Amino acid sequence: MSCISLPTAKSVIEAATAKAQEIGQPMNIAVVDDGGHLVAFVRMDGAIKASIDISIRKARTSILMNAPTGALMPLVQPGAELYGLEQTSGGMVIFGGGIPLTVDGVVVGAIGVSAGSVEQDCTVAQAGVDAL
Amino acid sequence: MSCISLPTAKSVIEAATAKAQEIGQPMNIAVVDDGGHLVAFVRMDGAIKASIDISIRKARTSILMNAPTGALMPLVQPGAELYGLEQTSGGMVIFGGGIPLTVDGVVVGAIGVSAGSVEQDCTVAQAGVDAL
Amino acid sequence: MSCISLPTAKSVIEAATAKAQEIGQPMNIAVVDDGGHLVAFVRMDGAIKASIDISIRKARTSILMNAPTGALMPLVQPGAELYGLEQTSGGMVIFGGGIPLTVDGVVVGAIGVSAGSVEQDCTVAQAGVDAL
Amino acid sequence: MSCISLPTAKSVIEAATAKAQEIGQPMNIAVVDDGGHLVAFVRMDGAIKASIDISIRKARTSILMNAPTGALMPLVQPGAELYGLEQTSGGMVIFGGGIPLTVDGVVVGAIGVSAGSVEQDCTVAQAGVDAL
Repeated sequence: MSCISLPTAKSVIEAATAKAQEIGQPMNIAVVDDGGHLVAFVRMDGAIKASIDISIRKARTSILMNAPTGALMPLVQPGAELYGLEQTSGGMVIFGGGIPLTVDGVVVGAIGVSAGSVEQDCTVAQAGVDAL
Repeated sequence: MSCISLPTAKSVIEAATAKAQEIGQPMNIAVVDDGGHLVAFVRMDGAIKASIDISIRKARTSILMNAPTGALMPLVQPGAELYGLEQTSGGMVIFGGGIPLTVDGVVVGAIGVSAGSVEQDCTVAQAGVDAL
Repeated sequence: MSCISLPTAKSVIEAATAKAQEIGQPMNIAVVDDGGHLVAFVRMDGAIKASIDISIRKARTSILMNAPTGALMPLVQPGAELYGLEQTSGGMVIFGGGIPLTVDGVVVGAIGVSAGSVEQDCTVAQAGVDAL
Repeated sequence: MSCISLPTAKSVIEAATAKAQEIGQPMNIAVVDDGGHLVAFVRMDGAIKASIDISIRKARTSILMNAPTGALMPLVQPGAELYGLEQTSGGMVIFGGGIPLTVDGVVVGAIGVSAGSVEQDCTVAQAGVDAL
């Protein structure tokens, strides 16, 4: 298995949605496959519209960089090694909330969460990861 | 109510998914709100990746034109009145599979379906519409 | 005078709006200056959203081509001399509804109208032109 | 009422225009609906052309983020939480001059103002907001 199925993506989104409800922050939640292509998405009622694009890009960025998006933040600062990175590949998002989804050490997709604080986004994304 | 809620969008997608399974054609299914912004999306296992973008654009086009996308096809042919229409508004899709979602005569969103034949796409989209 | 003023643009839009109300078709109406840059715009209640972009592009196309947009339609058909023209300059619209605005034979701007049939769009745009 | 009407948008623009005249700074003033789609726009004589796009994007950004654009500025600085945010959703503007328009606590649209200093832009946008 190297690519996430829709049922699995849905269970990841359900776990993330439950965490978002628990912390009281409506979220946009996206799951992409191992090629960065969208598999499933929900915008919880009340979540800001800007985060539709951001959540999908966070998930896609995690696949493209094979890393959580938050790990990129220090690398793209002015003066840092990858300054400007976020403008490549059609636009990447370099703040937290995107995390690869792995099964037995193999990346099968990624989750991207956006609409809250970065800390909240990461908490909700991690809940999705933990569902696997 | 002038904007579709996530629970309603999910019930539309579930009805469309059931129809897609019935006809044996995996689909990309998108629901947008009355401003054309994505609310929910699923890619059924086996559906082609190109139709991720197409299904979302079909739904968005239905909102922008306030019409089913299939109604646009004859209008944009060479020699017809709106030749070139599909290149406006950031790119519209003018073949069938996008249909507005209405409640009590008010447009609350739209569904876009893509991955099968246009006839199949329309059948599945209509199943979503009928769920409202 | 080689560039339309806001008061003049407003009077053009008022005349076009009055004609749109007379024929019972809500419209998107844009006026651009002699450089193709937007001066004033209104979306009448009930006009489709796709025509926001189309009306502005019609006005801009009229400036870029120094012609009414409807005059371009035969030129861009498959096999005709300018096939593909509409994909240049960031996207032009080649069906009727955009007309240059002239004062004493000098182009000072253009009007673009969209949301009805092409005939209706042209009628409303012409009403704006006649206000000058 | 969850979406602004043209007459209301016009009254917002008139109030903003009056304020711009009072402070002696010609402005670009845009009003969008609750989906971020343009409803009405004016460029006052003498206002710079770059601000056509900026004013419309400010209004759209306010809808997408559900916040005044000026609130975003500290969040997107190098080292801050949302560094790079402005490159998402097709390009957002993160300096002041965009403010949501609300009626009875419900967002019905947004105003975007641009061409002066940010302080001037905010003053004129607020005058539009106060007209509701």
